[in-house]
Amino acid sequence: MAQIYERVALIGLGLIASSMAHAMRRAGLAGEIVGTARSAETRDIARELGFCDRVVETATEAVEGADLVVLAIPIGAMDAVAREIGPHLAKGATVTDVGSVKRAVVEAVGPHLPDNVEFIPGHPLAGTEHSGPRSGFAELFENRFTILVPSGNADMDAVTRLTQFWEGMGAKVETMDVDHHDLVLAVTSHTPHLIAYTMVGVADDLRRVTDSEVIKYSAAGFRDFTRIAASDPTMWRDVFLNNKEATLEILGRFTEELFALQRAIRTGDGDHLFDYFTHTRAIRRGIIEAGQDTDAPDFGRIGKKT
Amino acid sequence: MAQIYERVALIGLGLIASSMAHAMRRAGLAGEIVGTARSAETRDIARELGFCDRVVETATEAVEGADLVVLAIPIGAMDAVAREIGPHLAKGATVTDVGSVKRAVVEAVGPHLPDNVEFIPGHPLAGTEHSGPRSGFAELFENRFTILVPSGNADMDAVTRLTQFWEGMGAKVETMDVDHHDLVLAVTSHTPHLIAYTMVGVADDLRRVTDSEVIKYSAAGFRDFTRIAASDPTMWRDVFLNNKEATLEILGRFTEELFALQRAIRTGDGDHLFDYFTHTRAIRRGIIEAGQDTDAPDFGRIGKKT
Repeated sequence: MAQIYERVALIGLGLIASSMAHAMRRAGLAGEIVGTARSAETRDIARELGFCDRVVETATEAVEGADLVVLAIPIGAMDAVAREIGPHLAKGATVTDVGSVKRAVVEAVGPHLPDNVEFIPGHPLAGTEHSGPRSGFAELFENRFTILVPSGNADMDAVTRLTQFWEGMGAKVETMDVDHHDLVLAVTSHTPHLIAYTMVGVADDLRRVTDSEVIKYSAAGFRDFTRIAASDPTMWRDVFLNNKEATLEILGRFTEELFALQRAIRTGDGDHLFDYFTHTRAIRRGIIEAGQDTDAPDFGRIGKKT
Repeated sequence: MAQIYERVALIGLGLIASSMAHAMRRAGLAGEIVGTARSAETRDIARELGFCDRVVETATEAVEGADLVVLAIPIGAMDAVAREIGPHLAKGATVTDVGSVKRAVVEAVGPHLPDNVEFIPGHPLAGTEHSGPRSGFAELFENRFTILVPSGNADMDAVTRLTQFWEGMGAKVETMDVDHHDLVLAVTSHTPHLIAYTMVGVADDLRRVTDSEVIKYSAAGFRDFTRIAASDPTMWRDVFLNNKEATLEILGRFTEELFALQRAIRTGDGDHLFDYFTHTRAIRRGIIEAGQDTDAPDFGRIGKKT
């Protein structure tokens, strides 16, 4: 794979940015990787691990001379950072981000960027329940989708270059309308996360069932929820605050259907339950056929030392 | 491991029973394994795979001379099968089951059994999203809990023997009060399954987001729900019909908390969201420390061909 950018600036050095650094290096996509993070501790860890060529103190320093700038920070921090780096961006640079919500990022970042840079918001649909600079690894994006949401008048060469960059890290790239992205993600990610957080919170609050019972007997289904509900709290707070309408819409649909099933349980309507549970099997088959999950029982946990 | 029962009768030959057969064989726990299933197709597959020493046509035949009888059938079928086998059970035999709900099984099975057999209901907290006789494997119970709910006047020797039998298949065994079992499982298994089924149903019903989008972008969280929601529909229908009170209680708690989080999203209360999401991380750590899940990112899916 040939080099695509001469200097990539990573603003924020958590799971996504550190994984990008590892993946870029492996594929030789960047001449130089410059990173920064707000916390001195994160910068120190990044220096210790060495996945950047240089770790600098400020975002302003990091973007100097960079032809690609990646905002890999919580959505709530986007406005302030864009304001800070705007005047220091190199002419012709591409700015992108990795936030899970796109309309809010467009509104927070766009106004602070000069006309001579290209802003192409992005979202790699990849992650784990771990966070921070130590959790990154080169394979994170392999066979996963990255969605780009370029504006109508985006420079097509810049979009193509960013697409090749993500493909070089192993991702499959799609472009999408910004609001449609937020709705799709409300269904496939944001609402499922909220529900998982809620279920884990309920289990933890019950007086009649002890925590140790919840933990011991979690293999019966609950533990899958705890994995999702162990994701980064700051990131998820910002997701919900910034994708409010779509999340509330899907939540409304969810509670409507949940109440219908609850009523079927209360009234003993076994046919309703059976039909519903049969129907949902089909979508799982689709996901496996599309290569987006393993068909190994229990995610292949079986037989592994856990 | 020494032989514990001379003849084990498996009534029903799905995921759990076929896994028990494989595990019993591996550890030499049974002199003979006799199996039966209601469907001729299932019996034929069991014969083809050979995990039983004999596959017979009826439950009555299967229990003849068996010192352990395992009811591995949906909860809705327990009453009829217990009525059928009751008169044919060997004196001194132990009867157990593997149902996910215990009070309903006690009430369905108990009255049909003669006084000279021991009924010790059980529940292995193990399973995958696959079902049927081809899905069984010897390692299913390893390091997982099996809960026994013997009545107050159960024969302690029979309980000890059944405990050793499950331990021989790799399980950790606990005993528990029957109603407490149903409440604990409503939290750790039944409600999470209902919620996962609901979320998958919602995704599948939306007009504004296509099925192919849901499938392609499922890696962002949703796919974990689809795995849970791919479990056997008959089994889960019966679980909800037979653990109605506990499930409805936990569902009530769940919707109460979900509405509080929904309100926090609507009003923009970031602190509430952040505190909630921080709190739920702790319980995940507990589960990993207790050896009930892997700490590998994304269940160790990463780097595997999916």
